[in-house]
Amino acid sequence: MKKLIVGVMGGGEGASPQVCETAYKLGGLIAQEGWVLLNGGWGVGVMEASARGAKEHNGLTVGILPDRHTDLASSYIDIPILTGMGDGRNYINILTSDVVVALPGRSGTISEIALALKNGKNVILLDFPLGDLFVEYQKAGIMVLVKKPEEVIEQIKKLFS
Amino acid sequence: MKKLIVGVMGGGEGASPQVCETAYKLGGLIAQEGWVLLNGGWGVGVMEASARGAKEHNGLTVGILPDRHTDLASSYIDIPILTGMGDGRNYINILTSDVVVALPGRSGTISEIALALKNGKNVILLDFPLGDLFVEYQKAGIMVLVKKPEEVIEQIKKLFS
Amino acid sequence: MKKLIVGVMGGGEGASPQVCETAYKLGGLIAQEGWVLLNGGWGVGVMEASARGAKEHNGLTVGILPDRHTDLASSYIDIPILTGMGDGRNYINILTSDVVVALPGRSGTISEIALALKNGKNVILLDFPLGDLFVEYQKAGIMVLVKKPEEVIEQIKKLFS
Amino acid sequence: MKKLIVGVMGGGEGASPQVCETAYKLGGLIAQEGWVLLNGGWGVGVMEASARGAKEHNGLTVGILPDRHTDLASSYIDIPILTGMGDGRNYINILTSDVVVALPGRSGTISEIALALKNGKNVILLDFPLGDLFVEYQKAGIMVLVKKPEEVIEQIKKLFS
Repeated sequence: MKKLIVGVMGGGEGASPQVCETAYKLGGLIAQEGWVLLNGGWGVGVMEASARGAKEHNGLTVGILPDRHTDLASSYIDIPILTGMGDGRNYINILTSDVVVALPGRSGTISEIALALKNGKNVILLDFPLGDLFVEYQKAGIMVLVKKPEEVIEQIKKLFS
Repeated sequence: MKKLIVGVMGGGEGASPQVCETAYKLGGLIAQEGWVLLNGGWGVGVMEASARGAKEHNGLTVGILPDRHTDLASSYIDIPILTGMGDGRNYINILTSDVVVALPGRSGTISEIALALKNGKNVILLDFPLGDLFVEYQKAGIMVLVKKPEEVIEQIKKLFS
Repeated sequence: MKKLIVGVMGGGEGASPQVCETAYKLGGLIAQEGWVLLNGGWGVGVMEASARGAKEHNGLTVGILPDRHTDLASSYIDIPILTGMGDGRNYINILTSDVVVALPGRSGTISEIALALKNGKNVILLDFPLGDLFVEYQKAGIMVLVKKPEEVIEQIKKLFS
Repeated sequence: MKKLIVGVMGGGEGASPQVCETAYKLGGLIAQEGWVLLNGGWGVGVMEASARGAKEHNGLTVGILPDRHTDLASSYIDIPILTGMGDGRNYINILTSDVVVALPGRSGTISEIALALKNGKNVILLDFPLGDLFVEYQKAGIMVLVKKPEEVIEQIKKLFS
């Protein structure tokens, strides 16, 4: 059976040490479940931390890079997908993910949440409250807010059990 | 000199008659300035209304379609660009626009606003308040909120004078 | 009625002066028919020459650029579409063109001819013999070889009459 | 160290049983070297056969699908990348591959060979003679023609030793 692919989105260079620590833990938990971790593939912020977490727990990591080369790829990415299409690759991130987890980020992360919801994906916000944004998806339970990485795993198990 | 390209984003099938009326007016004003109107190209909602407004005022209209064919294209689109890449085309919408105007919409429109800000484009919200979302761009004046189509034109003139 | 969009492909920096002269003539003829000229949008080779030909005969020109900015765009392009997706944009070139004309070029041009045929577009080779390549399309009349720009126009009229 | 990614291109539904048999063998050999096999991901022709060969020899397989869903994906693909961008994904195939192997195919395969050469990738033709096409790349040794799957492996080892 095909392994579940969990997309992990969130801030790049601007991500705080605390957010990166959470991303690292989440990556480890995803790996321990035997799931594939997917992210944007760069060696900074939530991308680097979540990939490192997954690799240090024997996971498999896929990075969907905006670039035509691997110069900026995290060394913790097993499969760097080179799209050469800049932020256009955000659409591929969310289509390829069976479920999308979003940690705190800025406009890039918001664009991925928006594309995920538009394309019928469930979104789990990890300590990233969005207020009334996408309130209809929140009410329908398609987008949920949790506080800890462990709760992300619980949510995913509920969705795919 | 190359004509200015103004991207007009907003709701599709779900857009209210009032929003469509505003989109129609905006399209007409853009055409009267001699600017090119760009949108997502479909024959519904803000896309249809803004293109119709532009064409009925002798404007030029470009639609960046998600499809591989013109079946869903608005008849008011002069140049239907067929991307065949679904919502991945949102990135092309904002790169190609010299400035982005957003009328009320849902997740698709939010994704375009987010991509626009991430890629250094100015965004003018037309009667589409977003609360605290992207507050740093609002404070910096990169994203502004106006109430009427005429104010959109004023804002654009300020940006490109 | 929507204007016909004619895609003109061919060599970039490596295009010979003779090929560029032919591209210039073709661009002029396309404009005189009232058709829209589409190409890759850069200010070199067949792209620059065909766009110049069209503009000097009051045509409308669309360039599908691989870039995120207009730095490399031909000054004869009216509508520069910024895809930010490198050669991935070749697919958009051929989807958007109602018919594809190919002047002598190298691997980029061959990729566009191949994608055009795969996606059901007619291809007119202008003084660009390809031997047995795509022979099944040649036999079926979907790809034809002509010698002069005037013959391209005749072929297009036959296809869309 | 990151594993080598070998792209395997070739015919889809129209591929002959003999070509599929060769693709199966090649997939197995790639897996035995510990390399990752990448292809277009569908459950037909060279894609299905090469992925099956790799999986039956404990390899890892990545499919770059044109679709927004996995309905057409080969069951032998571990990581289905959903691009939602049709043949535009051919560009991602070749960027992501460290080296491209082409078995007999038609226009889709030719487009991938052309894009690979344009983007500086080495191409190994496996029993797929192209005559004088891309002759300058053949002369420079960037594109080579071999007869057997074992020779493909030898060529790749030469390139990356």
